[in-house]
Order: sequence, then structure tokens, then C-alpha cells
Amino acid sequence: MLGFEGVIASTITPSKGNEGRIPSYMEFLRQHGVRGYYVLGTWGEGPRHGVEHRKRVAEKFVGNLNSGEVAIVHIGSSDMDTVMELLRHANDIGATATASVAPFYYRPDEETLFSFYSTLSERSSIPVMVYNIPSRQGYQLGFSTISRIMGELENVKGIKDSSGDPTLALELVSEFRGKKFVSLGSDELVSYCFLIGANATVSGVAGVFPELVVGVYRAVKKNRLDECFRLQRLLNRASSLLRNTGVEFETQRAALRIRGIDLGPPPEPVRQLREDELERLRSGVLRLTEELRNVTV
Amino acid sequence: MLGFEGVIASTITPSKGNEGRIPSYMEFLRQHGVRGYYVLGTWGEGPRHGVEHRKRVAEKFVGNLNSGEVAIVHIGSSDMDTVMELLRHANDIGATATASVAPFYYRPDEETLFSFYSTLSERSSIPVMVYNIPSRQGYQLGFSTISRIMGELENVKGIKDSSGDPTLALELVSEFRGKKFVSLGSDELVSYCFLIGANATVSGVAGVFPELVVGVYRAVKKNRLDECFRLQRLLNRASSLLRNTGVEFETQRAALRIRGIDLGPPPEPVRQLREDELERLRSGVLRLTEELRNVTV
Amino acid sequence: MLGFEGVIASTITPSKGNEGRIPSYMEFLRQHGVRGYYVLGTWGEGPRHGVEHRKRVAEKFVGNLNSGEVAIVHIGSSDMDTVMELLRHANDIGATATASVAPFYYRPDEETLFSFYSTLSERSSIPVMVYNIPSRQGYQLGFSTISRIMGELENVKGIKDSSGDPTLALELVSEFRGKKFVSLGSDELVSYCFLIGANATVSGVAGVFPELVVGVYRAVKKNRLDECFRLQRLLNRASSLLRNTGVEFETQRAALRIRGIDLGPPPEPVRQLREDELERLRSGVLRLTEELRNVTV
Amino acid sequence: MLGFEGVIASTITPSKGNEGRIPSYMEFLRQHGVRGYYVLGTWGEGPRHGVEHRKRVAEKFVGNLNSGEVAIVHIGSSDMDTVMELLRHANDIGATATASVAPFYYRPDEETLFSFYSTLSERSSIPVMVYNIPSRQGYQLGFSTISRIMGELENVKGIKDSSGDPTLALELVSEFRGKKFVSLGSDELVSYCFLIGANATVSGVAGVFPELVVGVYRAVKKNRLDECFRLQRLLNRASSLLRNTGVEFETQRAALRIRGIDLGPPPEPVRQLREDELERLRSGVLRLTEELRNVTV
Repeated sequence: MLGFEGVIASTITPSKGNEGRIPSYMEFLRQHGVRGYYVLGTWGEGPRHGVEHRKRVAEKFVGNLNSGEVAIVHIGSSDMDTVMELLRHANDIGATATASVAPFYYRPDEETLFSFYSTLSERSSIPVMVYNIPSRQGYQLGFSTISRIMGELENVKGIKDSSGDPTLALELVSEFRGKKFVSLGSDELVSYCFLIGANATVSGVAGVFPELVVGVYRAVKKNRLDECFRLQRLLNRASSLLRNTGVEFETQRAALRIRGIDLGPPPEPVRQLREDELERLRSGVLRLTEELRNVTV
Repeated sequence: MLGFEGVIASTITPSKGNEGRIPSYMEFLRQHGVRGYYVLGTWGEGPRHGVEHRKRVAEKFVGNLNSGEVAIVHIGSSDMDTVMELLRHANDIGATATASVAPFYYRPDEETLFSFYSTLSERSSIPVMVYNIPSRQGYQLGFSTISRIMGELENVKGIKDSSGDPTLALELVSEFRGKKFVSLGSDELVSYCFLIGANATVSGVAGVFPELVVGVYRAVKKNRLDECFRLQRLLNRASSLLRNTGVEFETQRAALRIRGIDLGPPPEPVRQLREDELERLRSGVLRLTEELRNVTV
Repeated sequence: MLGFEGVIASTITPSKGNEGRIPSYMEFLRQHGVRGYYVLGTWGEGPRHGVEHRKRVAEKFVGNLNSGEVAIVHIGSSDMDTVMELLRHANDIGATATASVAPFYYRPDEETLFSFYSTLSERSSIPVMVYNIPSRQGYQLGFSTISRIMGELENVKGIKDSSGDPTLALELVSEFRGKKFVSLGSDELVSYCFLIGANATVSGVAGVFPELVVGVYRAVKKNRLDECFRLQRLLNRASSLLRNTGVEFETQRAALRIRGIDLGPPPEPVRQLREDELERLRSGVLRLTEELRNVTV
Repeated sequence: MLGFEGVIASTITPSKGNEGRIPSYMEFLRQHGVRGYYVLGTWGEGPRHGVEHRKRVAEKFVGNLNSGEVAIVHIGSSDMDTVMELLRHANDIGATATASVAPFYYRPDEETLFSFYSTLSERSSIPVMVYNIPSRQGYQLGFSTISRIMGELENVKGIKDSSGDPTLALELVSEFRGKKFVSLGSDELVSYCFLIGANATVSGVAGVFPELVVGVYRAVKKNRLDECFRLQRLLNRASSLLRNTGVEFETQRAALRIRGIDLGPPPEPVRQLREDELERLRSGVLRLTEELRNVTV
């Protein structure tokens, strides 16, 4: 995993019975330059799905990896039994790595957080990643806590930081460069992520508009900053479109459907999009794909 | 359930293998005037426990009810399969009612929320309750949304509102008086709760210091406002002691142990309290129980 | 001031050149049972007005007091020179008392807060009051800080607490009963305020719908809790109408105009209300005054 | 002003009677590469000082400008009379430009905000700048509002955006490039600011550690990204040291004193630093200046 560099898509999850559509979804992402898959994360609605469906979905992603690709299976849940069962399963199917959001609903202190990742680390033979997303877990995970977890637990091999805090990002990248896998999960910071030298971005927008995020990555690699920020701006617009239309995360499925990838209906109790929302989404997707034709990086 | 009035304790949950201690814990609460049990709620760490343990704990509480007592089993979880499995189980064991926190981790819109409670309502023959706790679910559930859910779904028979918002509380009590079961879940508002005529308080502090909360209730009933607010102040102090010492919700278990009720060790990954924390807790519990000797209502 | 009990209106301020309308505004409030005036507070837009206009307005209110009435002049400002100049003026004109919001824009620590009120206390011969409004000053003023300021500074004679926190309110009333003047500034807690035994409410809604707030007060005094909470609900609706229509605090002036009191146009740069907003406001005011005809306390 | 590019220090303000120390403070900043001065902003405690002291301080900064340097005088206050008086004064003394924070304490809507900047714009012959600092003004100023103000008001020539939001920053820079002066006021985003092509950073840290911020600017200009981010990390540490030690903004004055610039005692009611705080500050300043010796850009 430490060798990987670039764009990891935070993949969208098909509903029950539609797991068979995953390979063609992966092919869509692949054709646009994605080589990594974050499976059943926040955008992938992991915490919302039941254990059995999560297992089927993880198997499909891991089973369809190409050589050189990575699949990080997210196992976070509100209950510890589920986390442990999914950890065993991710190990059994040979996922590249596994990640878990810090415990949510409750407010653990540093000791409890350390104990949480320590337990995961001990019971896993595949690498474990910390997943920090304050807007969902409900509290901040500060640098000193993360640093202790990453520093003392050998099998905690990296982090996905979705705090959106550029200071924390820079601190993590500087401190763990060459030692741990540092990826950022904020679409608004994709350009910054690669400029400061992070290993990867784990991007929600990349699950729907992969070419946009891969474009930013390539522009940074080629030192074409103008193009990089031009694309970052489109990326921000894509992010805003997906966040401010419809309902979490059926909007993402609907956008993929517009782009030709049908992952099935929403899981219960999530509603379908209304016709006016679909109309707005369609015109937004269209405008973005128009602009993306000119991407030359 | 609509006939019930008074104090419902938000019960503390014993760890795996210690479910046998529930009857003596219920007896402790009963001796201090409690007649209702909110099982596996936020203080009861429901969302943190696995499905099997939740079932065993619910069975014990429901199976040990005395005549005239109520047990509301909380089934909230981040994933819908778990909610549904626990709903069936709560029905099977004949719980008085069931409650579920609004979906957390994700941000549902009103339509999705309505669909969530509608599904619960349809698939349950025991009464269903809305559980509104913004500090945990991560968003506000406004009056118009609650009102639509309670108004249109016949089997949604009530609400536990832990928003701490006195305006919402007054609105709910006034609107649904005599039609639905309205209970408040904010320890700081227990006196207000009974003054405005709510059916019940579902109180976390009542799971540890039942006599305090029952005292406030009785003082209101006897129209002894001075005593009511004297006790409310002690209740606030108890709440502050439990919230600001140690770690969620091992502090509550430790406080009960000090009071003679041993519910076993904390569930993974929660840590034990440190000796200095225990010392502070012990002296706080002692001071409170001293003051409670003078309660005469 | 310590002898005063009841409703203090947080008065609305006429724009420059319209100070002459204050006496008839005071008469309107008086006829509905108000005996206290909080002058140039948050609803009275004190911090928005220049020093000279603040002086003229304060003079008019203080100069038109009837026997037994109180006028508390708010002197809070972002800059210390203005606070001091207004403090001298409030003393010169013989205001009943003066109050200042805790320093805003900046974040003082406890020592700086103590020093702030200590300076005010030393340089005033009229009583000084703490004004705690976290939503405006930008930080919480906790019980221990307030308690130190009120306990150690003899000339700090009271507090207006607009935190909306029932726990802090109960603590303040219990701790300072008979020693300091404790008033609450949250319209949503007017009934609670008088039930727990506070000296007064300083109410924004009372500046527009005085009969409503006086009604709640009288209902508590007569131990008619049903009527008290029925009126509290109307009060909440009035508060919501004023907060959610138009723009701060021109809406309040417009509502008074509808009720027959014209305080003039908005101060720069505040805009006028649009016709649709005025329409909504008119129908809201009408509905409320209709309901208020039945008030019998 | 549009021709200016680089680092503007958000200057620290000497207390009354110590205005004479401003020229040597400016010389200190100048020797470290600063060519712009933001006078009496948030770090410069403008809103806390009285009108007369603000005038004296502004005169000193403007009067000591070297050729090619810029001084932006901040006139923001809670009251409109003060803003207008300071606007006239800034014009009279020939400041390069003037800026005002959006109205604080109150919550203006878009119309009121537009009217506020429109009034400033009309009554000024020097350029006016919007100053957006949500953490102080208490609300967000969104892109569409800013865009309307900057687009429609000709004399509003630029913005200092201290929102810390990289998406807003990128949008502003992209939209107004070559037309308006776009500067960012977040120390954590200085490198990002220059990478995306903003005209300037207005930096609080630059008022105390100018060489650090100038170093980041030069590193970007020379396309030495490694050095740029190494320095950004030190800049973050400096920012954290200044924010988390002592009290606003006496810590900044104390740090300057350690560096040899004495701006006098704190203004009332701000306290002095305690000895333990001074000790921590001293060792922090020492460590930073040690590291800064190696700066070669």
C-alpha cells in the first residue's frame, strides 16, 4: 500500500441484489485513470448497510482488482461486534487494507481511541488505516492522538483524513512521509493534497467524476499549476452539485446513472430523487462533462 | 403506554455475561420509585453493543417487569438490517414499546425520516416511539417533521425528546396531550417536563440516582415548587458529575458499583476509570447521597 | 433595583431625530403592565448606534420614568472608550442601573472579564449589571466566572442572563437569591424564570407584545400554570414571528408601527421590510392580538 | 493597490501614548521583507480601541510609508457613526485603502450588507475593501454576496478573506483575477494563497514573525515547493504558539517585546501575561528564530 500513489475513488455502493454491477463500475473508474477503491466508506454508505450486504460488496470489489490496484475495505460501524466481524472478513478475502472510522455516536477519549485501533491492529494481518471524519464521528481527532496511534501501533499503516484541515494535513504528511500511508479525503483539498506530497486522495467526487480528480493529480505531477487549479474549481463545483442536490447518497447513484452506470435503487429508507432534482442534476452533470472534454493532462 | 406517568430510567447496560444482574438492578430502581425502563438507549449503550447482546439484555428487562411497569426497548443502529432485526425481536418478546433514534451518521431529509418511521410503524405490532437526540444524531429534528410523523403514522405512539429545547417540548406537549405519549429526555428539564404536563421523563440520571428524579416528579405533583427546584439543582449536579468524570458510560457503571450495583466491566474498547477519577466519583456520589437523605417528598 | 420584581421590556430604539416618540412608547408599555425598561440592549440596537444618539435615547427613557419604575441603560460597545463615556453619562443622568454585555469581537479570559467588570464597578455610583449573551458575544460565560464577578465586586448588583441555559439560570437564582438582582433574558424561558424565583425577565418580546409577557408573569404569581404555559406558547410564537421575518431589528419597529407606535425609519445601513414581509408580519401580529383578547390574568 | 503583490502584515497596535514606536516597528517589518501594512485590523485590535487612538495610530502608519508600500486602514466598528468618522479620517490622511469587517454583533442580510459597503463606497475616494472574518463577525459571507458587492460597487476594490475556506479563496481569485485585489487572511493558507495566484496575504503572524511569511511567499515565487511547505509548517507552529498562549492580543505584543520591539502595555481591560506564560512564549519564540536562521529563500 505504501507504494501506491494517486487517486483512490470513494466508491458508490449498489443496493442489495445489484452487486453484479460492480465490475462494470470499476471498469468505468479504471478507464478514467483510477487505480484505487475505497469500499463502503461514508459515500459508499457502509455504516448504513447490513453485514451481509457489506460482505458481498467487499468481495466483489476485492475480487475484481487488477494488478497494481488497491482496495481498502471500510469496516466502521456503531457496534464493535460488527466491526470485528467485518475485520475478519476483510482479512479472509484478502483486501489490500482495511479502514475504520473512529467510533461514532459515542465520544471516546484518547485512551479509548487508542484501545480501539490497538484491537483492530492486533486482530488483523492486513494493514489497518485510521479514518478521521469529524463531521460524521462528531468530534475532532487531533494530531497528537493520531500521532500516538500511528506511531505506536505497527499494523496501523496509514490514515484517511477527511477533516478538511490543511494544517493537520501538512503535519501528517510531514511527520509520516515514507513511513505511513497518508491520504486526504477532502475534495476541496485534492490539489493541496498532492502539492504537499500526500500519497493519495480518497475522493468522493472521484467515484462519480473520476476524470476530474485524476486530472488534478496529473496536473500537479506535470507541474501545471494553472490547469491544476482550473480543474480544482470544477471539482469544487462537482462536489457542490452532489452535496446540494437531492439526498445523501442517492444523488451520487443518480449521477452515475446519468453517466451510464446503473447501481440500482436506493437502500431503505432512502428516497428516490424527485423529477425536479433529477433535472437539476442532469443539467449539472452535462455542464461538467462538457467542460471535461477540454482536459488535456 | 399512554396511561403511564412519571419517571422512566434510561437504564445502564451490563457487559456480556453479566445480564443476570439486571433483575437486582431493576429492584434497586424500583425501590426508589421507578416504574419504567428505557432499555439500551444512549446511556444504555445500545448502538455500541452487538445484536445478540442487545437481545439478551432486552429479554432480561422485559422478562422482569412487574405489573404496571413499562419497558421501552431502543433498537436504533447505524444500519437498517440491525434495526429491523431488533424490531422483530422487541415484538417477539412483548416489550411495552420500542423506540429508535433518528438515523445517525447520515443526514436524512424529512421524506427519508418519514419513510424510516413509517417502515418501523408498519412492521411492528407494539407501539413505536420517535427518539430525538440532536447531539448524537447530528442534526435537528424540527417540530413540523416530528408533527407529521406523529400525526400521520398511527402506530407511532409517542416521542422521547432529548433536544433540551424547552420551546419544542412545550409545543409537543400542547399539541399531543391525550393523543400521544410525550416524554423528555433532558435531565436539566425534568422539573419543566412535569410542570408543562409531559407524560414522563426518560432520565439518564434516574438510572444511577433514581430517588433524585422521582423526588422532582413527586414535588411537582404535590405542588411543592421550592423542593422541586432544590432537587432539580442536585439533579443538575449529579448530571454534571456523571458527564464530566471519566469516560462515556463507564462512569455510570462505576457510580452504580459505588452504590452497590455491580454490572460488570466495560465493553470493548471502553477503558476502566483511573484511580483519581474513581476517587472524585466516589466523593461526588457520597455527597449526593448525603443530601438525598433529607428528601421528604 | 433589588426591590423590583416582574417584567422589564427590552425596548426598541427610535432612529435619530425620533427620540421624541419615546414617552408615548413608554406609555404603551406601561398600559400593558410593564414597569421596567432595558434601554439600548441587543434588541434596542445599542451597539449599532453612535454615542450621541445613545445618550439622547437614554436621557429620554430615564427622564420619563414614573415612580417605582426602573431604567437599566446598556452601555456595551466593542471599544472601551465608548463604554466608559456611556458609563459616565448613565451615572450623570441618574439611570436606575447600567449593564454591559461582556466584551465582544475579542475573546477575553476570566481575568480580563473580571478586570472589565471591576473597572465598571469602580467608576460607577449606580449599580452595574453583567449582561451575558453568548450568541452575540461569541463565547460562554460560565457560572464560576459570573459567580466570581458577582461575588467579589460589590457594585455589580445583578445580571441579565440571556444564555437560554436553564441550568445556569437555576444556579444563579439559587446562589444569589436576596443578594443580587437575577433576571433572565430568554423569551422562551419566561415562565421558567418566574417559577424558579428570578427577580425579573428582561424580555425582547415585551418591547413589542408587553401584555403577553406580563400575562405569563401574572399567571405564575396567581399559580395558574395552565394559563401560564398557554401564554408561554403564544410568547414563543411571537418570538418566532419577530425573529424569522424581515431583518434585525427593523422587524420589531415595523411590528410596533402596526400596533400604532411609530419609532421612525431604520438606522443606516439596515433596510426597510419588503411588502411581502410586511404582509406576513401584519397577519402574524393580527393573529396574536386576537388571541390576546382572551387573556384574563 | 492592484499592483501590489506579496506579504501584508496585520500589524500589532501600541497602546495609548506609545504611538511613537510605530516607525521602528515598521522598520523591523520592512527589514524582513514586508511592504504592506494592515492597520488596526483584528490582530491590531482596532474594534477595541477608541476613535482618537485609532486616528493617531493610522496617522503614524500612513505617515511613515516608504515609496511602493501600502497601508490599508481598518475602520470596522460595531457602530456606524464610528465607521463613518474613521472612513473620513482614512481619506483625509491619504491611506492607500480602507477596509471594514462586515457588520458584527448583529446579523445583516444580503441587502443590508450590500447597503453597508455601498455607503462606504460612495463616501470614500480611496479604495474600499471587504473584510470577511466569520469567526469574529459571527456569520458566513458567501461567494454570491461578496461577488455582488465586488461586482456592482466600483470603489470596492478588493477583499481580505479570513474565512479559512480554500474553496471560497479559489473562487474569489479565479473570478476577480486582474480586476480586484484578492488577499487571504488565514495564516494556515499562506502557501495555498500564493499558489492559486492571490495578490497578497494579510497575515497576523507576519506582524510578529515577518521573515516566516515572506519566506513562504518567496519560496512559492521561486517554485521551491519543498521549502515553501517546510516554512508553512513553521508558520503554523508560530500561529499556534501565538493563539494558544496567554490572552488576545497581548501575547503578540509580548512576543514582539521578546524580539526587541516594545509597543507598551496592554490596553484596558486586557491583562498582562503571567510569568509561566511568558516563559513558554520565550522558549517558543527562541525555537522559531533558531529555525529561521536556515531560511535561504
